[in-house]
Amino acid sequence: MRHLLKRSSPPIITLTTDFGLRDAYVAEMKGCILSHCPTAVLVDISHEIPAGDIQEGAFVLARAAASFPPETVHLAVVDPGVGGTRRALAAESTRFRAVGPDNGLLAPLLDAARVVALEDGPQGGQPAATFHGRDLFAPAAARLARGDDLESLGSLVQGALVPVPAATSLAILHVDHFGNCVTNIDPRQVPTGGRWQVLAGGRSLSLRVRTYSDAPAGKPVLILGSDGRMEIALRDGHAATALNLARGDRLEVIQQDPKPPRREKDS
Amino acid sequence: MRHLLKRSSPPIITLTTDFGLRDAYVAEMKGCILSHCPTAVLVDISHEIPAGDIQEGAFVLARAAASFPPETVHLAVVDPGVGGTRRALAAESTRFRAVGPDNGLLAPLLDAARVVALEDGPQGGQPAATFHGRDLFAPAAARLARGDDLESLGSLVQGALVPVPAATSLAILHVDHFGNCVTNIDPRQVPTGGRWQVLAGGRSLSLRVRTYSDAPAGKPVLILGSDGRMEIALRDGHAATALNLARGDRLEVIQQDPKPPRREKDS
Amino acid sequence: MRHLLKRSSPPIITLTTDFGLRDAYVAEMKGCILSHCPTAVLVDISHEIPAGDIQEGAFVLARAAASFPPETVHLAVVDPGVGGTRRALAAESTRFRAVGPDNGLLAPLLDAARVVALEDGPQGGQPAATFHGRDLFAPAAARLARGDDLESLGSLVQGALVPVPAATSLAILHVDHFGNCVTNIDPRQVPTGGRWQVLAGGRSLSLRVRTYSDAPAGKPVLILGSDGRMEIALRDGHAATALNLARGDRLEVIQQDPKPPRREKDS
Repeated sequence: MRHLLKRSSPPIITLTTDFGLRDAYVAEMKGCILSHCPTAVLVDISHEIPAGDIQEGAFVLARAAASFPPETVHLAVVDPGVGGTRRALAAESTRFRAVGPDNGLLAPLLDAARVVALEDGPQGGQPAATFHGRDLFAPAAARLARGDDLESLGSLVQGALVPVPAATSLAILHVDHFGNCVTNIDPRQVPTGGRWQVLAGGRSLSLRVRTYSDAPAGKPVLILGSDGRMEIALRDGHAATALNLARGDRLEVIQQDPKPPRREKDS
Repeated sequence: MRHLLKRSSPPIITLTTDFGLRDAYVAEMKGCILSHCPTAVLVDISHEIPAGDIQEGAFVLARAAASFPPETVHLAVVDPGVGGTRRALAAESTRFRAVGPDNGLLAPLLDAARVVALEDGPQGGQPAATFHGRDLFAPAAARLARGDDLESLGSLVQGALVPVPAATSLAILHVDHFGNCVTNIDPRQVPTGGRWQVLAGGRSLSLRVRTYSDAPAGKPVLILGSDGRMEIALRDGHAATALNLARGDRLEVIQQDPKPPRREKDS
Repeated sequence: MRHLLKRSSPPIITLTTDFGLRDAYVAEMKGCILSHCPTAVLVDISHEIPAGDIQEGAFVLARAAASFPPETVHLAVVDPGVGGTRRALAAESTRFRAVGPDNGLLAPLLDAARVVALEDGPQGGQPAATFHGRDLFAPAAARLARGDDLESLGSLVQGALVPVPAATSLAILHVDHFGNCVTNIDPRQVPTGGRWQVLAGGRSLSLRVRTYSDAPAGKPVLILGSDGRMEIALRDGHAATALNLARGDRLEVIQQDPKPPRREKDS
């Protein structure tokens, strides 16, 4: 199998949750993982996903996962439906391995993946109804990481999986720690030096720069982010606060005629 | 010795402090540990224990420690008395190993443990009067983790240790990141489908459900948490905020006669 | 080479950034490091450096680095000039190895260090203009950690490096999580039992104690911190809030005549 080719590297498991860092919850998952796979290298992606915010969790996880080796196991738990009827998944493709609830959280990682529905109680007991992260998902991630076959964790899922809720129009997908607003604007629609306007929160932006330090002070700009998406940024400032923008806000791109006919003077 | 049986697994050291994550303090402890025990696997439990809050630290540590292998060393520093007369401890039982101040923080882990009082300066020097976490506790944890005998760290303590302050009546023990209020209500006092009332912050709760997703929207419920304690929860909401509850708040359980005589109508 | 002497210990890489923990950014750097150096032990120093605050980043990094083994690689990214003309550095001395921007952030670690300017694209491609942390610095840190020669990362820098902005007068250098105010007051100027006054925010302090628990309740004191600097502290309280002090605030030390002539009675 693919992930056995690098047998000399310790297995990596990442963790993405909405658990925060005040409680014992994240550590309980880690203790459980290390009990099953003592050589695992544990890497936190984020535990500050807003409570129950599957869309944000999927966004952050997908972005981070792209920088990890393909044999990494991504364990993600943003799971408002825990204990209910939603399925619990483990999955494997040539690019990712992942474990978590079937609620859209893992969806960006599941292209062309084989997916199994986890059976309850991989530790031999019933998982707590309220903490599948520790009792169901963590042991499954540890078993994948230590080399167990995917199919040993459950039965292959044939039907459709729950997709991640996706923006259906131009919008702000994510506001980062610095206030940069990540958008789904196609970079080709806003070429450097082109004649276009981006309308965002009542403001009009018309300048694209290559780096934050190229931006004029005080003027919000478009910039190509490091994940290939266009961002709205403000040099030395917090764009989202300054422009009063939030995740989900609609955007508009207006293409301007490169040589406007100026017929108004003819009339 | 017990912890030498698993010699092939790297030693685990957990860290629980009230240091926060803005300063260098946690990293200083880790650098010190890795200097003494380069193969240690370091796992953060929490560094967001409120400053000086021994009771909360003991609660979070005890809960997390239950999920780790027994040879794990739990290093905990919530230590308002640092540099004063409180003793510094290292301890070992069949279930836990632990290092920290003798102020109640470690108390839940010390049942049937052998305990030693750390001698100053395991590095050969005097520890800084203000940072025993780095200068006294971290080296001791590293030495335990790498296999040094407990007795090599200090002299066995014979007398009583400082207990953790415990709630003497029904109360909220902990409010978690999601707003769930962990209580010390005996689960048998509030059976599913039973006739009881829990009084909390002027509200009366009378419904127990198995999972968060079983709860009716907007109605606070009792639920059995994943550590075996009863919690007050609110589906898709923050119970503590909605019910104006905080740690330490008193609770009351009223058992109702399963077949009330309804004498009021007789009178 | 020095760092090859301890070949049996896994290499340590620390991370210090202003990225926060909500986004994928820190994890992207870690995924990149582990792709290049799978055995690296990753230790977070802090990701809560205020955005773009080079001085604070340099303070926290320098303090933490002092507790790590000298072969540790310290990767630091507080980099408001990313993508601009500032140089990207890797450095090595007998006490530290470090990777980051040439903006003062690494300056406290660079005494007597050999320093190279990183060439773009150590992965074979152009780094993203906005995320050198992931695309330029992380691979360089991983290569140093796995044993690559410093000179293989770029050309030796001959000229001066950007210094860290330093306080030119007595001031508060840092306010920590507990509200302790770290100062640059020389400990010899405020001896225990001496006759001096420290003026801070309109208040006068005149007591130095050895430990927090030696301080009288409610009375702000001077205390020798665990990094050798004098701190203003308040037992069981938050000194910065109580005294309305912030980083950068000026301080004054007034030495008092040990035997004041008391001429006022003579006049």
